[in-house]
Amino acid sequence: MKAAYYEGNRTIRIGACVPQDPKPDEVQIQVSHAGICGTDLHIFHGAMDARVSFPQVMGHEMSGTVEAVGEGVDHVRAGDPVTVMPLDTTLCDPADPYKHIGQHMKFMGIDTPGAFQGYWTVPGFTVHKLPGSLPLQHGALLEPLAVACHDVRLAELMAGEQAVVLGGGPIGLLVALVARETGATVTLSEISPYRVDFAKTLGLDAINPNETDLQAYVEDKTAGQGADVVFEVTGSPAGAATMTTLPRIRGRIVVVGIAPNPHPVDLFQFFWKELVMRGARVYQEEDFTRAIELADEGKLPLDALITEIRPVDEAQAAFERADRGAEVMKILLQLS
Amino acid sequence: MKAAYYEGNRTIRIGACVPQDPKPDEVQIQVSHAGICGTDLHIFHGAMDARVSFPQVMGHEMSGTVEAVGEGVDHVRAGDPVTVMPLDTTLCDPADPYKHIGQHMKFMGIDTPGAFQGYWTVPGFTVHKLPGSLPLQHGALLEPLAVACHDVRLAELMAGEQAVVLGGGPIGLLVALVARETGATVTLSEISPYRVDFAKTLGLDAINPNETDLQAYVEDKTAGQGADVVFEVTGSPAGAATMTTLPRIRGRIVVVGIAPNPHPVDLFQFFWKELVMRGARVYQEEDFTRAIELADEGKLPLDALITEIRPVDEAQAAFERADRGAEVMKILLQLS
Repeated sequence: MKAAYYEGNRTIRIGACVPQDPKPDEVQIQVSHAGICGTDLHIFHGAMDARVSFPQVMGHEMSGTVEAVGEGVDHVRAGDPVTVMPLDTTLCDPADPYKHIGQHMKFMGIDTPGAFQGYWTVPGFTVHKLPGSLPLQHGALLEPLAVACHDVRLAELMAGEQAVVLGGGPIGLLVALVARETGATVTLSEISPYRVDFAKTLGLDAINPNETDLQAYVEDKTAGQGADVVFEVTGSPAGAATMTTLPRIRGRIVVVGIAPNPHPVDLFQFFWKELVMRGARVYQEEDFTRAIELADEGKLPLDALITEIRPVDEAQAAFERADRGAEVMKILLQLS
Repeated sequence: MKAAYYEGNRTIRIGACVPQDPKPDEVQIQVSHAGICGTDLHIFHGAMDARVSFPQVMGHEMSGTVEAVGEGVDHVRAGDPVTVMPLDTTLCDPADPYKHIGQHMKFMGIDTPGAFQGYWTVPGFTVHKLPGSLPLQHGALLEPLAVACHDVRLAELMAGEQAVVLGGGPIGLLVALVARETGATVTLSEISPYRVDFAKTLGLDAINPNETDLQAYVEDKTAGQGADVVFEVTGSPAGAATMTTLPRIRGRIVVVGIAPNPHPVDLFQFFWKELVMRGARVYQEEDFTRAIELADEGKLPLDALITEIRPVDEAQAAFERADRGAEVMKILLQLS
């Protein structure tokens, strides 16, 4: 079994995996698939060198099979297909309702070793059993799908509502798909022609705001009322400027994208229309449960989101392709 | 009876009031007191010339006594002390839950004639009866007090929570006072030394962020957790920058101040702490009802908020003093 070790300076070394026997309340997983996330690329760029350790085993979107369980673990057993909700909240106050974003939460694969290794040993409470009917490569999409479930849940999106998603990368697409599954009418706005075309192949109403007046489009589509919910998944100044132009009176905005700097925001629109905006980060237990249900129902085009699956030996090339980004959705590494 | 007519160019002419007999469903009020609001000053500056009519009778914070009622009005009668919730929603969809900010709502005193006249005839549904025990000059403060009640209600502020109010003008002060009445611990931030001192005389914990590190102060006061609720009542770039630095995880921000331009906002903090922000504008019926209750309980220092009461003949001088602003809270005009 192998592991991919990030050594800094955009370099990933492939080496032997060092299996860790599970201690009490831990689970050892034989990793099957693991996806490359935007955060992994951020690490690859060196932007998080101060937070990660060297060599860092990245990876937090995964699926696998239980290899062994430590004492006290009884919700899974050897051979079970599983995924991990990669938030190690061991050091958080158990009574904290928001420990998923708590100060002492450790994000596995960033703050601790991750899933780009053949055997991964994790706290038992992070392990979720998968339905036997779910392909393991789909299991590796559950983590970003749970992000989308969290975003849609915090939006309090309801069937029949009008949603606009700004940004059509993997998370934006998943948000759009989950919103559609919720029964909402969805408009996806994305400036990459490849991503617009890709979203259309999934049956989404995708438009390029560089070609179409998005505000007029949404106004027309909502009979002049404006959108019920806008998901800002770009993190860009354009997204921050656009997000307040689309909602109806008392409409909701969910901030999903990571904006590295403060962007100008039209606070007057918040006042004038009594808009509501909330940030959404990662997920909570119920979002992971919902993601597993949704994936298992088979209605989401998860296969289409997987651009390619490469053996872990090709991690360096896989990262470089993901980094170019132009015509890629999700790349999975195969660990075993 | 007289009226104050805004003629443009910072000029108010005093003339005769032209009483309008109440039509069906209307109420004619003999106006007692009417406050000068920031919006009135905005009109006085000429900033709303495109919206108002000339000559414009301003004024929407008032109290008075019913002079006569039109056919079909049975909730008040001649002689009753009253105030007006100055939102004429006649043209709104009656089923619209948000008609208080609806597209067809007319703000009385801006879009239609207001209260700076001896007799004011208004739609009956806007008239709220006052308790006989409430001094009429306090009745003229109910409108801004209802704004504060709306802000605190939309914040879902609860007893025991920590609130920070950015901005200590009349609305900021009323928000702080209502928040305190709700049982919250309140910190008021204000850069005017006069207003800081004034707030202290009301027993508020007021600090000047130019002298004290507000973020450190709030962190210390909340045992490192951050504030539950931040009210942004400045409309300024500094307020927009500060508002995201103070809340706890899942803390709430209420945008009350009117920001004329987009200001930089740290959207990353929304993502990171899952902050919630909502705009709040004017009030709804329950806020007016609550404001009347609160005022009648006599626990709010309403007398202290009234800097002076001047006869309507001195409206020009009163506006000029309010406009200088330095050492003024609320100036009332006496109409009868």
